[in-house]
Amino acid sequence: MRNIKLLIEYDGSGYHGWQRQPDGPTIQETIENSLSKITGENISLHGSGRTDSGVHALGQVANFNTECRVRAEEFQKGLNSLLPKDIVILGAEEAAPEFHAQFSSKSKVYIYKILNRPYRSALLRKRVWHVPYRLAPGAMSEAARELVGEHDFSAFAQAGAEVKSTVRTVTSAELKNSGEDIIEFTVEAEGFLKRMVRLIAGTLVQVGKGRLSPGEFADILNSGEKNKFVLAAPPFGLYLKEVRY
Amino acid sequence: MRNIKLLIEYDGSGYHGWQRQPDGPTIQETIENSLSKITGENISLHGSGRTDSGVHALGQVANFNTECRVRAEEFQKGLNSLLPKDIVILGAEEAAPEFHAQFSSKSKVYIYKILNRPYRSALLRKRVWHVPYRLAPGAMSEAARELVGEHDFSAFAQAGAEVKSTVRTVTSAELKNSGEDIIEFTVEAEGFLKRMVRLIAGTLVQVGKGRLSPGEFADILNSGEKNKFVLAAPPFGLYLKEVRY
Repeated sequence: MRNIKLLIEYDGSGYHGWQRQPDGPTIQETIENSLSKITGENISLHGSGRTDSGVHALGQVANFNTECRVRAEEFQKGLNSLLPKDIVILGAEEAAPEFHAQFSSKSKVYIYKILNRPYRSALLRKRVWHVPYRLAPGAMSEAARELVGEHDFSAFAQAGAEVKSTVRTVTSAELKNSGEDIIEFTVEAEGFLKRMVRLIAGTLVQVGKGRLSPGEFADILNSGEKNKFVLAAPPFGLYLKEVRY
Repeated sequence: MRNIKLLIEYDGSGYHGWQRQPDGPTIQETIENSLSKITGENISLHGSGRTDSGVHALGQVANFNTECRVRAEEFQKGLNSLLPKDIVILGAEEAAPEFHAQFSSKSKVYIYKILNRPYRSALLRKRVWHVPYRLAPGAMSEAARELVGEHDFSAFAQAGAEVKSTVRTVTSAELKNSGEDIIEFTVEAEGFLKRMVRLIAGTLVQVGKGRLSPGEFADILNSGEKNKFVLAAPPFGLYLKEVRY
């Protein structure tokens, strides 16, 4: 049995997220269907993790097992000719039998993009979160630095999600201005809770607006409790940048 | 009679270009219809120039006359609430009575964006021209510099277009790498011939592929004649960046 690893870029706008589900098209299902056409087998694709409806990926990783003898590069070409324009396979390679896109991953990098100017953008719609109020990137950077290290991220976990532990280790978290009026928040961690990046990004914007100080942001993080200032940023500003192994 | 100047961003993907025409929606028509709703008048919007079907604008300029007393900023807000998401008014201001978006313009700046990597992009589709063959940006830069100055641009004019003169003055033309795998060609001129930037961009790509040397590119320009290497780059990589007055 072969094990093939795929590197995937997608525009999440037209999908109900990564994970196969009954009520709408998903990225996983779309790629699985194309793989089944190529192999003539029922293929199960294992992603590094789910992404929510509307969330994008610059480098999602997934793997699948097959008996089919098609070369890895041919899987890439075949998939790219079958897949819709909003999903692209950037790479395909033979992986070790024990490789699993989710369980083998060491860390993930997410980027959250904010457009900070008075008027929305025609060309960046569904690609950034438009925040019309002038944000203070200095205060947001200071708050972001508080995230680095091992913390109980309960304050930034979706209510009701069941997980064994809400402790996660963030290895880097930083803000930069990228291009005119774009603020990019990049965060790397060994693992993330459901909605964690969107809840953090939404709260960082509260800091940028001056509704929270960086110290109060740290207090919320350290309290481990829900807070009215913790609001999820919309999905379309979020990008799964990279999965590291 | 008031004269209002608008600064406009648009995603040209869904439109048959700027100019009002019978067989499909255009940017001009869409904005005129919204202006007529606000003013109760039949509004004629004068753009700085046409853009082809699929071409984008980061800073198109247009003006219109009205008797309506709505403040310029209110025109901006009203239009942005009425217009579809792929058109945004970035600014609106009172202009001098003699101001005309086309005839008052001193120069225009266009950007042409090329994605140079083996595989297409899901997130940048309809935003860049994907060229999968490795291009040589050095040779392309050298060729681009030949454009600067006053030239007869007949070699880069659409066949059959009737114009009084094909002489134009290019004030700057340069290439830069912007982000991963993106090559941006920026050109400023007092005026452009129809399709000129797309014909130049397509020919620069021939230079990047090694099919033409920078010297041969210069020869084509100086010949003032059609050449089989002069092929128009697709519209979706082209952006009207700025109109200067």
